[in-house]
Amino acid sequence: MSGEQQDVSYLLELLGGEGIPAGPGDDAALVSTEGEILVTTDPVVEGIHFEAGSSPTRIGRKLVNRNFSDLAAMGAWPTSIVVSFCFGPSWQRASRRRLYRSVKAAAEKYQARWVGGDLAAVRGPSVFTLAAIGRPPRGKARVVTRAGLRPEDLLFVTGPLGGSSIGTRHMDFEPRLEWGRRLAERHAPSAMIDVSDGLALDLARLLEASGGLGARLLAERIPLHPARTLARALCEGEDYELLFALPEARSRGLGEDPCLPARARTPIGRVEAEPGIRLQWKDREETIPAHGYSHDLP
Amino acid sequence: MSGEQQDVSYLLELLGGEGIPAGPGDDAALVSTEGEILVTTDPVVEGIHFEAGSSPTRIGRKLVNRNFSDLAAMGAWPTSIVVSFCFGPSWQRASRRRLYRSVKAAAEKYQARWVGGDLAAVRGPSVFTLAAIGRPPRGKARVVTRAGLRPEDLLFVTGPLGGSSIGTRHMDFEPRLEWGRRLAERHAPSAMIDVSDGLALDLARLLEASGGLGARLLAERIPLHPARTLARALCEGEDYELLFALPEARSRGLGEDPCLPARARTPIGRVEAEPGIRLQWKDREETIPAHGYSHDLP
Repeated sequence: MSGEQQDVSYLLELLGGEGIPAGPGDDAALVSTEGEILVTTDPVVEGIHFEAGSSPTRIGRKLVNRNFSDLAAMGAWPTSIVVSFCFGPSWQRASRRRLYRSVKAAAEKYQARWVGGDLAAVRGPSVFTLAAIGRPPRGKARVVTRAGLRPEDLLFVTGPLGGSSIGTRHMDFEPRLEWGRRLAERHAPSAMIDVSDGLALDLARLLEASGGLGARLLAERIPLHPARTLARALCEGEDYELLFALPEARSRGLGEDPCLPARARTPIGRVEAEPGIRLQWKDREETIPAHGYSHDLP
Repeated sequence: MSGEQQDVSYLLELLGGEGIPAGPGDDAALVSTEGEILVTTDPVVEGIHFEAGSSPTRIGRKLVNRNFSDLAAMGAWPTSIVVSFCFGPSWQRASRRRLYRSVKAAAEKYQARWVGGDLAAVRGPSVFTLAAIGRPPRGKARVVTRAGLRPEDLLFVTGPLGGSSIGTRHMDFEPRLEWGRRLAERHAPSAMIDVSDGLALDLARLLEASGGLGARLLAERIPLHPARTLARALCEGEDYELLFALPEARSRGLGEDPCLPARARTPIGRVEAEPGIRLQWKDREETIPAHGYSHDLP
């Protein structure tokens, strides 16, 4: 039996198939839905999103959580995943199995089901790509997009930022699914995004999607991880906290929500009509560029 | 503006966003569904599924059609796609844009919508991964899985096989969506698969999924591409024709279906209770191994 066939057998056993009419091992997976779904896809690439030699458990978790973070940013909840694994030469069987088990555990932590995928061997860096299906927020709540900011909206983040690439926090974060859904269902943010490429760039994306608005950030209010700098919070990525906005009139309700800890609604500034991002210090302000992590395509 | 940002702008313009509440450019795409969906994912990898220097138009089309072929094998129809592009260093902007346009055109050929995805740069072979969402066959028809063969079922293929890697047929095939759907909706095949890894291996998959049955193939009836050998048809891949089975009692109806050309219902053999695949010649029979294309994982 080839390495691929062995892995397929292993995966069929790992994933099971009870209760789904077509799933792991078939050409496509059949998934029940309720009218609308959210779909997203993100890869993790060796040398970019993880270093060669990283723990397969961490890599699998990051692959799942990176995609779930995108769903969290819409107020959505993951229900199913499919995964395509392109393994570079260094991935031995034991490592591949640890990766598979980690993907399964990370999905199941949020009651999502791994329903299908593909395996391939590649002569170069490994590329693992996941596509996640999610359901929209419940009841009458709407998905929260990047567009919809209005001048005077208050800006919030769900936690401290900066320096995720020092150490392993960029591998070990939690997707803010509960908070994202709570926000969508109870507070209807004007707009929301997960901070994956740095606060400055991700805020710029919200501003641009909302028709070219600007923002004023309160430099001393931006929560930072211990020993991390504001520059790192603004310009690095992979924090995976949510950045969202609310009209001031509704921010009191946010402050009183018992399901959101104080850190999950840290105010950091305000939307303004004038384009550009301004950083407000006690005694001065500066305009900052929308820098952040960007892939260097030729 | 970075290469990534330029590409994102280009893609937003290419994909548009009318009529969808959240789509290209947001964290996830919102898609309407009707109770059940099919999900599948497959990559195309440089050096495996296409050679460096192949036409971006061909590569994009193959990426789409490879996934659509999986949906065809369930009797499903594609509705939406998300795509993750990991570009190796050789992909200049003009090539990337040809690839994007080709993906869009290939999806739209079947009225499917490209709703989202991701871009990354990778230091190695390019890996492009697509996930496709499809809807099940209409009416009371059920999706057709790999399991469900019964002894005495007749086996059919939708067209000639073999030697797709000679020349560019492995890049230029059409997914058998119309035929797959027609088969599911009118003829309820016992089981179906697309022949992507060679007739022998893909037939073995049907037999195994159906509980360990066997089959007898009529060597002289297996349709071959001109100048291609039976060995290639059995053991190579990427034909992307459908292989399906029907009880003999229902094969007359199949033969009379005006929507299926004769080539789309070419009988090639029969399912048998005895495990193994037997190749029947006029004067002899041989048992053949379930060889085919398999990724060489360590």
